[in-house]
Amino acid sequence: MMKQRATFRVNFFFLCIIQFLCSNSFAQELSSWNDGPTKRAIIQFVKDVTTEGSDKFVPVADRIATFDNDGTLWAEKPLIEGLFMFFRAKQMAEKKPALKNVQPYKAILTGDKAFLEKMTQNDLLKLFVETHSNITASDFKNDVETFFEAAKNSKGTSMQQLTYQPQLELLQFLRSNGFKTFICTGGDVDFVRVISEKYYGIPPEQVVGTTSKYVYKDSAGINGVYRLPGISSFNDQKEKPVNIQKYIGKRPILACGNEGGAGDVYMLRFSQGNSYPSLQLIVNHDDQGREYYYQEKDNKSLNWAKKYNWTVISIKNDWSKVYPD
Amino acid sequence: MMKQRATFRVNFFFLCIIQFLCSNSFAQELSSWNDGPTKRAIIQFVKDVTTEGSDKFVPVADRIATFDNDGTLWAEKPLIEGLFMFFRAKQMAEKKPALKNVQPYKAILTGDKAFLEKMTQNDLLKLFVETHSNITASDFKNDVETFFEAAKNSKGTSMQQLTYQPQLELLQFLRSNGFKTFICTGGDVDFVRVISEKYYGIPPEQVVGTTSKYVYKDSAGINGVYRLPGISSFNDQKEKPVNIQKYIGKRPILACGNEGGAGDVYMLRFSQGNSYPSLQLIVNHDDQGREYYYQEKDNKSLNWAKKYNWTVISIKNDWSKVYPD
Repeated sequence: MMKQRATFRVNFFFLCIIQFLCSNSFAQELSSWNDGPTKRAIIQFVKDVTTEGSDKFVPVADRIATFDNDGTLWAEKPLIEGLFMFFRAKQMAEKKPALKNVQPYKAILTGDKAFLEKMTQNDLLKLFVETHSNITASDFKNDVETFFEAAKNSKGTSMQQLTYQPQLELLQFLRSNGFKTFICTGGDVDFVRVISEKYYGIPPEQVVGTTSKYVYKDSAGINGVYRLPGISSFNDQKEKPVNIQKYIGKRPILACGNEGGAGDVYMLRFSQGNSYPSLQLIVNHDDQGREYYYQEKDNKSLNWAKKYNWTVISIKNDWSKVYPD
Repeated sequence: MMKQRATFRVNFFFLCIIQFLCSNSFAQELSSWNDGPTKRAIIQFVKDVTTEGSDKFVPVADRIATFDNDGTLWAEKPLIEGLFMFFRAKQMAEKKPALKNVQPYKAILTGDKAFLEKMTQNDLLKLFVETHSNITASDFKNDVETFFEAAKNSKGTSMQQLTYQPQLELLQFLRSNGFKTFICTGGDVDFVRVISEKYYGIPPEQVVGTTSKYVYKDSAGINGVYRLPGISSFNDQKEKPVNIQKYIGKRPILACGNEGGAGDVYMLRFSQGNSYPSLQLIVNHDDQGREYYYQEKDNKSLNWAKKYNWTVISIKNDWSKVYPD
């Protein structure tokens, strides 16, 4: 009798473990999402692809999810990598004082807003390349780490507080259901990799992004990859599916981007071409009070969402909370 | 008393699980490796980097291992991707019969060895590009799958039987000690990805390789990545560290290549620049009886191994068995 009880106890213990391991903990994990069609669509999709025997079942190895970063996982106003660009520019001028008299370094150092606001796309791209090159990948990583340790936006908020709480929950929810989560960002890959694990639980090797031209050097005290001036791949628009093919080699069954610059529409289309069931999500910046309100002039992302039956995430309606505490 | 026994049983059960999970099962996992300095160096290294509190300890997230493929994980004579090139050439000639009168397609179809042996590096590169392009990534993947299902070498051996048994054990040994294993190959990334999981237990997204030029198309019945004629990156020599930086973003603490074409020496040097302890391995093809005997004319790989203190794997002396049963 006693022996039976002990066996029962062990079995019960086993059952608890199994239940814990198998628990999909649907719904309660997405606590910052309001109940509504968006949350329900996400939960239904995850339920479908994880239910063995269902005709919508997707094997774990193919549960690939790709997320844009700026405007999708964290706020993009101001563009955080833009702040880093200014940080690096100041640092470069410290090391090479002659730069202090050269624009736009002078304007950055003196806070000359009038000048900075007039900078064109080309001026910004030139500054991007200058501040992201002529440095080893290791030193660049150190600089990015220093930036994130100190950086605050104009309201005194750290960068980590600009991530979206509901998306952090979504990433975790997907992973606890066997998904492998990737970032597919227009940001520099070496920039985003510094915080991907800490902010999002995504290891650096699961970040696909814009890449600099690199060269490997093994001489004169350097044994490492050196960042040359110039961009090897700007991971935006149609380059996103191209780089997903190169880096991951599988179509995502879930792809999430945001409206604002229409940079994610092809990643979502690529996902939609999957032979497995797939879900496309697009964040709509429609909440002036808690985040921002901005729309594309031609409304391309939202028009395509309608045309191709993507799920639009309304920050205003779908998120009960925007930022982490 | 009975209650105590039940508790004891549960605790014992726990202990067994913990012991099982923590078991490093050193040595016995590498059963196709002969005892000797090479095997001992590998085991010592893994012990060092996994022993918490040791000054050589490396956190799991940084236990990155990269392996070349041809000549390192499977035999490279004949080059398996070369067989695929001929397979594709025949297939292309079936679809477009005019090719049957064009060289080298004609020679491939008729088995004209004299012609084929005279092909230059440039001829082969041209054929490589022709047989690897003008096709969607999905169709290419299907063709590679078909190739591997049917392919046998001249001795009637399937391609999977050309993998090296000791290396399969080494990959598994590393993974069971928290390593993330990657392939870093000169082969086409989409080619190697088809068999990486089945042959080596390495998921496709952990393969870094040579990449074609790609373009994303979403029109005329295609929604996918299309392979254009031309190579975007030939993952050999100094391009290996460059692509490891792009795809993984971390230096490997263990890198393994082979002598034969000196294609891996920079990957090993890059690994050696790690701030963590690291191990470099180079396979020496010194076993004419069981595998092959070939050496580089200038002996670069083995000279560098000596100069930089890399561990040389002698197929003849270090492996008790070369191929799987």
